[in-house]
Formats: sequence, structure tokens, C-alpha cells
Amino acid sequence: MTPRIQMDHGAGGRASQELVARTFMPALENPILSELNDSALLELQGLSLAMSTDSYVVDPIFFPGGDIGSLAVHGTVNDLAMRGAQPLFLSVGFILEEGLELADLERLVDSMASAAREAGVQVVAADTKVVERGKADRIFINTAGVGAIPPGVKVAGQNGRAGDIVLMNGPMGDHGVAVLSKREGLSFQTEIRSDSASLNGLVNEMLEASQEIHVLRDPTRGGVATALNEVAQQSGVGIQLDEVRLPIRPGVSAACELLGLDPLYVANEGKLLALVAPEEAELVLDAMRQHPLGRESCIIGEVVSEHPGRVILKTEIGGSRIVDMLSGEQLPRIC
Amino acid sequence: MTPRIQMDHGAGGRASQELVARTFMPALENPILSELNDSALLELQGLSLAMSTDSYVVDPIFFPGGDIGSLAVHGTVNDLAMRGAQPLFLSVGFILEEGLELADLERLVDSMASAAREAGVQVVAADTKVVERGKADRIFINTAGVGAIPPGVKVAGQNGRAGDIVLMNGPMGDHGVAVLSKREGLSFQTEIRSDSASLNGLVNEMLEASQEIHVLRDPTRGGVATALNEVAQQSGVGIQLDEVRLPIRPGVSAACELLGLDPLYVANEGKLLALVAPEEAELVLDAMRQHPLGRESCIIGEVVSEHPGRVILKTEIGGSRIVDMLSGEQLPRIC
Repeated sequence: MTPRIQMDHGAGGRASQELVARTFMPALENPILSELNDSALLELQGLSLAMSTDSYVVDPIFFPGGDIGSLAVHGTVNDLAMRGAQPLFLSVGFILEEGLELADLERLVDSMASAAREAGVQVVAADTKVVERGKADRIFINTAGVGAIPPGVKVAGQNGRAGDIVLMNGPMGDHGVAVLSKREGLSFQTEIRSDSASLNGLVNEMLEASQEIHVLRDPTRGGVATALNEVAQQSGVGIQLDEVRLPIRPGVSAACELLGLDPLYVANEGKLLALVAPEEAELVLDAMRQHPLGRESCIIGEVVSEHPGRVILKTEIGGSRIVDMLSGEQLPRIC
Repeated sequence: MTPRIQMDHGAGGRASQELVARTFMPALENPILSELNDSALLELQGLSLAMSTDSYVVDPIFFPGGDIGSLAVHGTVNDLAMRGAQPLFLSVGFILEEGLELADLERLVDSMASAAREAGVQVVAADTKVVERGKADRIFINTAGVGAIPPGVKVAGQNGRAGDIVLMNGPMGDHGVAVLSKREGLSFQTEIRSDSASLNGLVNEMLEASQEIHVLRDPTRGGVATALNEVAQQSGVGIQLDEVRLPIRPGVSAACELLGLDPLYVANEGKLLALVAPEEAELVLDAMRQHPLGRESCIIGEVVSEHPGRVILKTEIGGSRIVDMLSGEQLPRIC
């Protein structure tokens, strides 16, 4: 059978990782791309810049708590922030399906503009393509971003160390469940809203509190489980999660149970994971809690020298289980 | 009737311009974006950078002389080069349709890698999304690029002056006709191949020859006519073209006649237009002709103070006619 692209290849889990390793890396490999961080580190005449890109194909394009426009800003801003960079400039590429209502496009562009203002980034370049009806799905948006990394900031997926504390800035799964609920027309007693937000302000506060933040990662596609597996592999360390400490809203937990989803694998768009030196963890946690996007910050686990490359969950009842990367498609077109 | 996106909005002509002016600019406006150059000029701690983005939706994805992969590199490299920037870094966003053959994807990625190597740029960031069968058209690629503008280089669409000579590095229309012929299954006696190529090497030679290059523009969507109309508007000057001097291959000319296309509006992907101070025009022309991509360079017109914002063609038989921007869709999905 002819090997073909499957939905799994876009899910951010194991199949995505294999596609990158087998198809993209052999041709495109260079030391910067090979680091596989949320954004690339560019050294240019003494300046340290970060660059990142993401395409957004979320379905539906409007969902509780956000839309594809604000998401396209938040997502790329966050990829830059996860490198400790100050996001400065965004480019935007629209692919529009013939027949898209202009009013919807205007609403999305306004939403992008508000998100950009809030995050303090400028949209400096843009492009629009139109394809025939039936050759796209209303609108796809690509954003690429450039940011400046302040001197002394060294945050990267490779920098986790045994002993580091794993922090998270609030409950998991809100974005994925909000999008899926809207798509499937489900309604719950309490509306579940996406957490989509720009995290660069929060990251600034954290970096001001401590120089000992080793890794930052936003658990988007593939969720907390996949993001931490990537970090464990990149840093060559083990990560131990405490099930009782994993933050989740009761409504999201109930929805996940109903939908057969494991919240550890559900996408977030306004959350970050931080690996911080143990002696500074409380300091960073305090700084996070003082920021509007960090009120519910908590410790969810720690980095260990055992089982390098693996994430283990200590369960509520005292056992432990391996938390693998996402394999297969849990939620298609979630971002 | 509900206003909706039409194919015209993506054609790069008047409808595209109106969409930008009415929908994007009111929300996103800032001094950098408002310049509407091929790439944005970013000033960052004493460094001058250029940033640009384009999405590529060309149909078919393989065509004589290129494919969507090489095109996605050439197009963005050229947008940076049109600002006089040295292209350095590219980000790549893939949107893949479920069912795309992996072998095709690999071929496209190899093609991107070759094009990037040739142009001297590194792909530093990448992203892949997959959408369901029927929700895209095999593959869409977005590239964003960052380049460095050497000190002293001041090339911009606003800088054209009366008296400037208009140069072009070779015949027009090859790309558009090559793509259309392949799409429609037409064959001509001589195969028409896309001119798709990275122009940064040629631009380097030109800038080394003269500091008096005022404007560079690549006549992609909307062709030479639309690109020169944009420049005439941005610089507030008139442009006069000489019909007898307009370079076109006999095969492309014949194909255009057959297909009812005006070659002045057909897309090029390896061509540039340069507005150069008259006293330096010969010098620049000589430099262009010594470069492999400039062998067929020629003078096609001049900049005048009359009819600001308009392009006038002096016809072969001694008359003259206004050459307007592309209005309506001449060729859909050409890049």
C-alpha cells in the first residue's frame, strides 16, 4: 500500500515525531532546526533572536473563549515566550476558502489585532491566498514570529536537570474540551472555555523572579503528557508526576470522562510547564500566582535521574504508570 | 447578498488591494505594515532586518521548472531580496491533506532543501498540520523569512524618482504559463518552464555595482503590470513602458495569445523589476547580465513625473495606453 499522510501525522504525538524524524530532518537538518524547541534560537551580530511558526486549522473557527484569529497570535507568541524571548514581530499568512463571509474574516482580523496589542507584538507582514470552494475549510492562518532573547536568559528543552520541580500555571484541558464541545454541539452545565492566551507577560514575571528556570514548554497538541515526554527525551531525564496534584476543573474532568479523553493528552493554549531548580521553585511559584494567568499555578511533579526519557505518574492509590507520548489522533484540528 | 470572499481577492490585483485596505489595515495598521513592501523593515538594536511571509497554494504542486516546495523557498527569499536584504532564516508551515502520498511530500521537502541551500538560507522552524480529506488540496506551504539589510542599502517601493530607468532581468510570463499549461494539460512545441529561482545572488551583484538602486520588486501575482502600478502609487510617480522592449519568449507569447492572457499580467517567480538612477542604469545592467539569472536583462521603460500613480505603455505603432492593475482573477492558484 502506498504510504500516505494520515490524521495522526498532525496530532503532535508519536506519528508527528516520526514524520519529522524520517521525512523532514534528513533533508532540512541543521543545528538550529535539530534542537526541536518551540522556537529556534538565532544568533545574529551579537543579538539573540527566537523565531517560530505555526499554522492554525482549528475547527470550528469560533469557539468559547477564542477563535482561530486570537489563537494564531497566542500560539506563536507562546512559542517565542517558551524560549524566554520577548515577542516583537509577527507575520500572518491567510488561506481563505472562496465563499468565506467577509464579516467572519473581519471579526477574526479584529480578534488577531486585539490579541497582538495585548501581547505587545506588531503584525509586520501579511499575505492572503484564496482557493476554490471545497479546497480548504473556511480559513487557515499561519503566523511566524520573531522575538528577542534578553541577555542571560537560557531556557531550552535540553536544560532539565534531576531535582528540578515541574510547575504548571493552572488546570489542564480547557482548550481541547472547549473546541471539541463546540464542534460536536455538546453542552455542559458550566460552559467550558478555551484558556487561549498570550503567556509572555507571565513568563517575564517568572524570569524576573529567577534565573534558574531551565525549561519552559506549552502543552498544546498532545497535552501535558506529550510535552513532558519531549522534554524528558531532550534533557535525558525522567519526570515524575503526582496524580493528586494534577490540576483540572471538575467540568473538564467530567467532560473528558464522558468523551473518553485522557486530560493529560488534551491541548492547552494558555498553559505552560516550567522546570525550575528546586531552591528557586517557591520563588517562581509565588511570582506566577501574582499574575492574572498564573493564579492557579501549582507544582505537578519533579525531575528525576531514573528512567531517563520517560514520564511516570504516581497514581492516587499509590501505584505508578508510564505516561507515554500521544500515539494516534486524540483530537483532530484542535489548533 | 452577504459579502463573501471570491477568487479575485487572492489574485494580487485590485480586489486583493481592496481587501487589504478595507479589512486588514483598519485593524492591524502600524507604520511597518502600512508600507506595503514585499518585506517589512524591522529596526532592532541597531540592526536592520527584513521579514516577509507568503503562503503557497499553487495547483498543480509539480510543474515544469519547479514545484510548490522550491517555489515556497524562492518566493520568500525573493521578497526579502527585494528589500536588499540577505535572506538568512526561513520558517516553514505545512498544511497537509489526509491521503497525500508520503513520497510526494518527501520529494517536495527535498526540493525545498535544495532551494534553501542554493539561496544560502537555513530552515530554522517548521510546523505540520493535517486536515481531513477534502478540507485542503494535497499540500499548502507557508514560509516566513528573516534577512539582514546591509548598512547603506535603502531599497523600497516608495523610493522611485522621475528619471529612473526600469530594468528587468529577463522575459516575462514563464511561470504563469508553465503552471497553467500543466494544469490544463496543454502542450506546446517547446516546453515552457517556470522561471522560479532565488534572486538574492543577482541582487547582491546589482547592489555591489550601484548604490542608486531605488526600487526592487518581483512581478509575481498580477505580473509586471500590477507590480509597476503598485510602485507608481507608492512612489507617487508615473511609469512609461516601451512595448517594443518588453521581453517575452515566442512560445510564451503564442501560449498567451491562445489562452487569452495578457503577458503583462502573468506571474513570474524568478524575475525582478529595478528602478535605477539614470546615470547608473548601464552599470547595473552590465552587472545583471554577468549573473546567470540576468543574462537577458534589459531596459523596459522609465519613470516620469507625469501621470503619477499610473503606468502607460507606448505601443509598437506609436500610440499609448494605460496599463491598469490586474482587476479580477486572471489565473487562480498560480503561486
